[in-house]
Amino acid sequence: MSALRPSPIAPTVDFERDGVQHGFLRLPYSRDDSAWGSVMIPICVIRNGNGAAALLTGGNHGDEYEGPLALYELARTLDPRNVSGTVIIVPAMNYPAFRAGTRTSPIDKGNMNRSFPGRPDGTVTDKIADYFQRELLPRADIVLDFHSGGKTLDFMPFCAAHTLLDKAQEEKAFAAVEAFSAPFSMRMTEIDTVGMYDTAAEEMGKVFVTTELGGGGTSRAETVRIARRGVLNVLRHAGIVAGAVEKTPTQWLDMPSGDCFAFAEDDGMIETMVDLGGKVEEGQVVARIHSTGRTGIAPQEIKAKMSGLLAARHFPGLVKAGDCVSVLAVEVG
Amino acid sequence: MSALRPSPIAPTVDFERDGVQHGFLRLPYSRDDSAWGSVMIPICVIRNGNGAAALLTGGNHGDEYEGPLALYELARTLDPRNVSGTVIIVPAMNYPAFRAGTRTSPIDKGNMNRSFPGRPDGTVTDKIADYFQRELLPRADIVLDFHSGGKTLDFMPFCAAHTLLDKAQEEKAFAAVEAFSAPFSMRMTEIDTVGMYDTAAEEMGKVFVTTELGGGGTSRAETVRIARRGVLNVLRHAGIVAGAVEKTPTQWLDMPSGDCFAFAEDDGMIETMVDLGGKVEEGQVVARIHSTGRTGIAPQEIKAKMSGLLAARHFPGLVKAGDCVSVLAVEVG
Amino acid sequence: MSALRPSPIAPTVDFERDGVQHGFLRLPYSRDDSAWGSVMIPICVIRNGNGAAALLTGGNHGDEYEGPLALYELARTLDPRNVSGTVIIVPAMNYPAFRAGTRTSPIDKGNMNRSFPGRPDGTVTDKIADYFQRELLPRADIVLDFHSGGKTLDFMPFCAAHTLLDKAQEEKAFAAVEAFSAPFSMRMTEIDTVGMYDTAAEEMGKVFVTTELGGGGTSRAETVRIARRGVLNVLRHAGIVAGAVEKTPTQWLDMPSGDCFAFAEDDGMIETMVDLGGKVEEGQVVARIHSTGRTGIAPQEIKAKMSGLLAARHFPGLVKAGDCVSVLAVEVG
Amino acid sequence: MSALRPSPIAPTVDFERDGVQHGFLRLPYSRDDSAWGSVMIPICVIRNGNGAAALLTGGNHGDEYEGPLALYELARTLDPRNVSGTVIIVPAMNYPAFRAGTRTSPIDKGNMNRSFPGRPDGTVTDKIADYFQRELLPRADIVLDFHSGGKTLDFMPFCAAHTLLDKAQEEKAFAAVEAFSAPFSMRMTEIDTVGMYDTAAEEMGKVFVTTELGGGGTSRAETVRIARRGVLNVLRHAGIVAGAVEKTPTQWLDMPSGDCFAFAEDDGMIETMVDLGGKVEEGQVVARIHSTGRTGIAPQEIKAKMSGLLAARHFPGLVKAGDCVSVLAVEVG
Amino acid sequence: MSALRPSPIAPTVDFERDGVQHGFLRLPYSRDDSAWGSVMIPICVIRNGNGAAALLTGGNHGDEYEGPLALYELARTLDPRNVSGTVIIVPAMNYPAFRAGTRTSPIDKGNMNRSFPGRPDGTVTDKIADYFQRELLPRADIVLDFHSGGKTLDFMPFCAAHTLLDKAQEEKAFAAVEAFSAPFSMRMTEIDTVGMYDTAAEEMGKVFVTTELGGGGTSRAETVRIARRGVLNVLRHAGIVAGAVEKTPTQWLDMPSGDCFAFAEDDGMIETMVDLGGKVEEGQVVARIHSTGRTGIAPQEIKAKMSGLLAARHFPGLVKAGDCVSVLAVEVG
Amino acid sequence: MSALRPSPIAPTVDFERDGVQHGFLRLPYSRDDSAWGSVMIPICVIRNGNGAAALLTGGNHGDEYEGPLALYELARTLDPRNVSGTVIIVPAMNYPAFRAGTRTSPIDKGNMNRSFPGRPDGTVTDKIADYFQRELLPRADIVLDFHSGGKTLDFMPFCAAHTLLDKAQEEKAFAAVEAFSAPFSMRMTEIDTVGMYDTAAEEMGKVFVTTELGGGGTSRAETVRIARRGVLNVLRHAGIVAGAVEKTPTQWLDMPSGDCFAFAEDDGMIETMVDLGGKVEEGQVVARIHSTGRTGIAPQEIKAKMSGLLAARHFPGLVKAGDCVSVLAVEVG
Repeated sequence: MSALRPSPIAPTVDFERDGVQHGFLRLPYSRDDSAWGSVMIPICVIRNGNGAAALLTGGNHGDEYEGPLALYELARTLDPRNVSGTVIIVPAMNYPAFRAGTRTSPIDKGNMNRSFPGRPDGTVTDKIADYFQRELLPRADIVLDFHSGGKTLDFMPFCAAHTLLDKAQEEKAFAAVEAFSAPFSMRMTEIDTVGMYDTAAEEMGKVFVTTELGGGGTSRAETVRIARRGVLNVLRHAGIVAGAVEKTPTQWLDMPSGDCFAFAEDDGMIETMVDLGGKVEEGQVVARIHSTGRTGIAPQEIKAKMSGLLAARHFPGLVKAGDCVSVLAVEVG
Repeated sequence: MSALRPSPIAPTVDFERDGVQHGFLRLPYSRDDSAWGSVMIPICVIRNGNGAAALLTGGNHGDEYEGPLALYELARTLDPRNVSGTVIIVPAMNYPAFRAGTRTSPIDKGNMNRSFPGRPDGTVTDKIADYFQRELLPRADIVLDFHSGGKTLDFMPFCAAHTLLDKAQEEKAFAAVEAFSAPFSMRMTEIDTVGMYDTAAEEMGKVFVTTELGGGGTSRAETVRIARRGVLNVLRHAGIVAGAVEKTPTQWLDMPSGDCFAFAEDDGMIETMVDLGGKVEEGQVVARIHSTGRTGIAPQEIKAKMSGLLAARHFPGLVKAGDCVSVLAVEVG
Repeated sequence: MSALRPSPIAPTVDFERDGVQHGFLRLPYSRDDSAWGSVMIPICVIRNGNGAAALLTGGNHGDEYEGPLALYELARTLDPRNVSGTVIIVPAMNYPAFRAGTRTSPIDKGNMNRSFPGRPDGTVTDKIADYFQRELLPRADIVLDFHSGGKTLDFMPFCAAHTLLDKAQEEKAFAAVEAFSAPFSMRMTEIDTVGMYDTAAEEMGKVFVTTELGGGGTSRAETVRIARRGVLNVLRHAGIVAGAVEKTPTQWLDMPSGDCFAFAEDDGMIETMVDLGGKVEEGQVVARIHSTGRTGIAPQEIKAKMSGLLAARHFPGLVKAGDCVSVLAVEVG
Repeated sequence: MSALRPSPIAPTVDFERDGVQHGFLRLPYSRDDSAWGSVMIPICVIRNGNGAAALLTGGNHGDEYEGPLALYELARTLDPRNVSGTVIIVPAMNYPAFRAGTRTSPIDKGNMNRSFPGRPDGTVTDKIADYFQRELLPRADIVLDFHSGGKTLDFMPFCAAHTLLDKAQEEKAFAAVEAFSAPFSMRMTEIDTVGMYDTAAEEMGKVFVTTELGGGGTSRAETVRIARRGVLNVLRHAGIVAGAVEKTPTQWLDMPSGDCFAFAEDDGMIETMVDLGGKVEEGQVVARIHSTGRTGIAPQEIKAKMSGLLAARHFPGLVKAGDCVSVLAVEVG
Repeated sequence: MSALRPSPIAPTVDFERDGVQHGFLRLPYSRDDSAWGSVMIPICVIRNGNGAAALLTGGNHGDEYEGPLALYELARTLDPRNVSGTVIIVPAMNYPAFRAGTRTSPIDKGNMNRSFPGRPDGTVTDKIADYFQRELLPRADIVLDFHSGGKTLDFMPFCAAHTLLDKAQEEKAFAAVEAFSAPFSMRMTEIDTVGMYDTAAEEMGKVFVTTELGGGGTSRAETVRIARRGVLNVLRHAGIVAGAVEKTPTQWLDMPSGDCFAFAEDDGMIETMVDLGGKVEEGQVVARIHSTGRTGIAPQEIKAKMSGLLAARHFPGLVKAGDCVSVLAVEVG
Repeated sequence: MSALRPSPIAPTVDFERDGVQHGFLRLPYSRDDSAWGSVMIPICVIRNGNGAAALLTGGNHGDEYEGPLALYELARTLDPRNVSGTVIIVPAMNYPAFRAGTRTSPIDKGNMNRSFPGRPDGTVTDKIADYFQRELLPRADIVLDFHSGGKTLDFMPFCAAHTLLDKAQEEKAFAAVEAFSAPFSMRMTEIDTVGMYDTAAEEMGKVFVTTELGGGGTSRAETVRIARRGVLNVLRHAGIVAGAVEKTPTQWLDMPSGDCFAFAEDDGMIETMVDLGGKVEEGQVVARIHSTGRTGIAPQEIKAKMSGLLAARHFPGLVKAGDCVSVLAVEVG
């Protein structure tokens, strides 16, 4: 029922107009420090005729930077004469979180990637999700959503798509991943899809591609280069930007089961025994958790439940019980 | 005058007793949630006879992990039969900051390395500094204080000592740096020494060695190995631990002038154009700061004022006006 | 379904009893600092026989003071012998917000005027709205809800009612506005009515009158006099209080379109170029936003999209992107 | 509909395995300081064959300690050879609240005992409630949920059960209360049962027993002894633990009407005129509330609306308008 | 030097005027929410001619209630015709802390009893201490300062004075303690006297008496009666209030050494094995600290280092490393 | 001694260079979110030869806007060809407070105008004060420091100077006030000068002029015009800017005694009975404080202790005991 209510978000751009437009999604947000305030989410539309449309997003989580760095730059530099169709760029999707440098929104603690399909009368995060669900996703043929590990995880750089029931759709997505040309490419099987932007796009039949390009709440020159090359490659692959895909080698990975993940059962100081990308044998100690209240206490050891590469790890020096400590992946293809 | 008042800190270890003792420096700290509470700073004393004494510290800043990871491990594993003299280990010097995972103390915002010589009637941080100044430093012949970049800076891994007026003292310190065997070794000329632990130790004539071994509020397997090898090497070099120094090659560096440092003049999202350890030419853009309030705005460019290696950089993805963006160093020797 | 559950709010007054009663709406609110605590919302009932009933409210937003100042005074001084019917006074409707001096509730950030029809099992704000929806509004024939600009907006003083589909109902409301006799009177066409108390009352067919009497989180002697005269005039007009309406001249205003509103697109320091009530020509600069990070930067200019009077403006000296900067109105009648 | 979605909680224990298992309910909880974090709720299962099952819980409110002290101890010491059937122990049901020492969850302010039946896609507190509703309660024949007054209330120690429509079920519950052998035993008639764990259990036909064993956010040696004896007695009474009930005398109490409760109408400093367990006559002053802004002001007196024993009282020295000041009970049986 | 600057505090009472005056110590305190604000500390002066003067204080720590309850009542009820001399009552010495219900000041975290002699240009707490040091203490012959355990400690009720070098002064203080007639009376030997109000008074040669009358951040009817009787007894004993001392039996206690105190070395949930006033033998377990992160872990035991009565204990259910767990005292006399 | 230590502040402008420079005072500030961060205080130097120097400041308190609005504009528009000498502009002196929109610094709660002469090794606010004391004030001949009422006070607009012992200096200051040409001009006799910037400047013999130009944490077009005209007038009067003073009429005022000020003795909702600039007779009620916990309570009345104009008043709708409620001034000359 609430789906019938119009979105409170007003765009200052016209999605049907050719050329480059830099504007905002204005979302009214009344609060103690601004009775008639709004959240102003930057949006850029670059259009040249009636071709295919790409929807490009960063800042789905607010502490991940490769995506925003690639997309603010793309919005500033992409010449519409090289475009055929439409490129919609929202470089910082959960803009309040992005401004705060936090994963979730400081306004409502909303995790954007668990808020779909959203609600027009929900929280600020819900309202943004609803606008993507009902206004932006339907306009797109291909969707690229940038992620990195954020402040608390670090990843080997990969582009990824999901295994899907619709194998034709899946095939298109994996082809786009291949075009992206990250050092690694991941086949992901999502177990818990509740609230994900990915699923929202896939259920509409869109070609959906995502990434994990580093983490720790920072970026590196190298990972930013991967992101910039990748987004152009995907647009070229889709025929929206002129020119050939700049292909570089990629290693395909798989996460075959829940044994990929290890979790801490105690608070403490973490010691990673293997660096990112390192090979791990089943039974090997991948991390130790040190109790710090006194000296002389033996650390807890966390052992690998399978063999593989260390694809991701807990980033901060301190760890809490329940935190994901490490993720292993296996090379395929 | 306040220097004559005894420290309120009570150790539960006996510095004159042989063997291994795991104990606390108990610092009374009355507060709303514990009227008769204390801060319990872990300390370990490993002693075997009347030889030289080393004072080893980590957690001077609470968000730096290579030092604590090396020192909790050393305290747990060092066999007193291999020791000749005394090893005093305080793996988390600013313990309240270390428990909170923050650079400064959550109690009083005290930056330990700007709090010397401390005060017995000051803040909690002041009282800890005073105890080191009056009780621990006088017991030591050699002092090793571990640092890394913390949550907001990232460093190429180096061990360092200061240029000193007393050249004999300086020479001993540089020899200890050489023994540490980090990948890089730094000659530092401190300009503003006010309140530093380093200076407090050096003014007492101690051999003082420090490090910067990474950063970002995390650690890597590789940097922890450097720290563990380094501390043992320094103790072997000093004759306190039996065995030969495990020497590996090191590249000496220098920071010749204030031109090493670049600062942001605007808030925004930072893009590092060069990764840590990369070569930079004078005039090259080392970083760009992107305005994020709307798309289509050209970033501010920050250019190198000299040529060198990128020795350190701002870590988080967002930057504020006044933040140090990059530090350059030159290879010497 | 939840509408069938009884309200958890228990009044300590009897709405059917003649005379003056000063009491509470007691709303159980279990929380960390009071396991069996309650919110105690002051209410006053002044009744003399079976005549018409007025429901008078202030503090719908907690940082607006003309309403509470008029209503606490009225509750203290209105002699039931001068009354014919019932006057129900809730001088601080969102009482937790009023006590905190904030627009929204410090308990749940609830904006009372966006919370109707409320829920008996929702937040504290939802529960209050539900009690008005199901218990208080049904008792009333005429409803007067006081507003001012609060801490972040400032208004020319006006009384207002909405254009309604039921023209007989609308006419009664505008007649009550005329009786109020504020310096200005406003015809309002509400676009987004979701959750408003106004709409809840109007949908029940009540005569609903509201005000904007100043702002900035303060009040002036003059605006308090307007409020006190206005509420008595409305009660006299309704025949609930004896005596003639004290009529003074009023200027009717209209807000013809969305061009009335201007919004900031940048953070900064705001400079109002016209004071409240001043005349503005289309294209005139009504405000400038100064960047403050350095000197020498030209301010952004905000221009009027129509001609009119400056009816409202952003109040605090700093402004954020998305804030409403100015509201224009045109004189009619 | 949401009830059909599986719980996100994964237990690390096997409810069908004999012996003692110490494990966790792992509840994924993504947040700013841990992107892939979890809440780890300790659980212990002690099983010996196919007999009856008891579900034992403490920490429903996080600042009540008799229950957790009895249950961590029971989990550590109960020998499965003395068990016939299954004992499921969750000593700190609202574990985030328990770790914070607060009544409600610091994550979402959830009051566990007002969150049933919960939701698998709600807040952290909702998800825990849902897991009890759908996974744990169905496994149990008898349910014992420990409460005390928490930081803001203090109670005479009693065990209690509710009057129920199903008199056979009620009789079993009162028999279990009698077996518990607290100094006092209470017949409770719940008025507002919305969201209670008690009601959730009773509606499934379980034998449900609860307690109030002191309060103030502390425990006493004596009340802990009552709790430990009580839980063993209930398990013996249910035939799950071998041995006879250790019966001690108990005085039955009743709370006959809303006159049992008195509430503050003003903020101030509270003075209890009668200590816990003291006899009170109707009209007697049970508490005074002192205004503290200046000296010389007469306190407000709060008088008993009935005669009885002081069964509970407001604990902190300061009181707010709306707080429950005192609860009276009458001796029966 | 700062001592020569006058206090910024302005009293609204005249210390030389006969009769009862209820007024304030007004302390200017400019802050964000009140540019020209003040702290208004209630004070009452009851004077009848030129006799001896008593200075009576509560709320030295803001979460202790027996003193304020006795002193607001005394200020309201003491008839100056029964007085000979002057009674100065400051029932809530650290008034900002008292209003917040916290041990220390919410403004500056100042612990009043560690802030003497204070400073006229220091924090708000420093300024209050300075006013007592230079203006109030010099006016007094006898000083009674009420304490209880506050929110984090609980005490057996006693009145106390210090052993002093001036044995005549000490004798007068112990005689006043005897007159107070608390159930217990304590001889205290203060080790660390830095900043104490007690010491400030004693160094001026005043007769200084203090108490510990309970704790937990609450009060009981019984402990309030002890406080009220005690303060009148001390005033009668001093000849300031007419009438005979109401003597009741008291048991003298002593705390012979540092072995009285036990401290926690771990965080956890505390279990008191002995209730307040209970007898303890050397080596007996007085408390256990339970780890709560998982079930099945043996608690840490804290053993008595001497025999005695449990005179005080940690109050909250959770405990942190460094907290004082228990205090033992021995019966003397 | 600390005065001999150099300031840690580094200016990026050269005070001896002709022309316009827009730069920063860079103050190193190490903190948890930026280990090597700085505060960047904007400064503008406009110089043309060796004439007299003016030091112009706003944002001494961070929530006062007329000064910053006049000074950012002046810095942007003043043509050095119209200057003879030097104009140093620091439009936001307590820059951290100004950015936060608060009276005092969010870093250290420092009130800049109570922090002089500052300390090079103190808080951030102390360091800024020290830089003005030792580096900027000595460069100036005339000093103009803008103030308004801030968020919690509102003033009739006036320019002011202090009565001084040095009557020649006083005369020059009053002449500059007269040149400023505010609607009102005030002779101020400061009682408590501790820590004031005013006094620091006056003690160096500088001509010091200040203002109060409105308040409430906002500005009006009219008061900004007064500020802009005033600063140019003062510069023209001093011969630093070319052209004649634009003289407009001013009414001189005096605050003859402490009877000018009235303070609240209770918390509540304030009602101003007279608007700013209104005439008040001795004994007249200037404000009432309403208790809001229940209806039906008579307000407290605050009466004028002398006759005069209402020169300033408490601004927010709520008031706390100790707040300054009103300031009266008398017309002179």
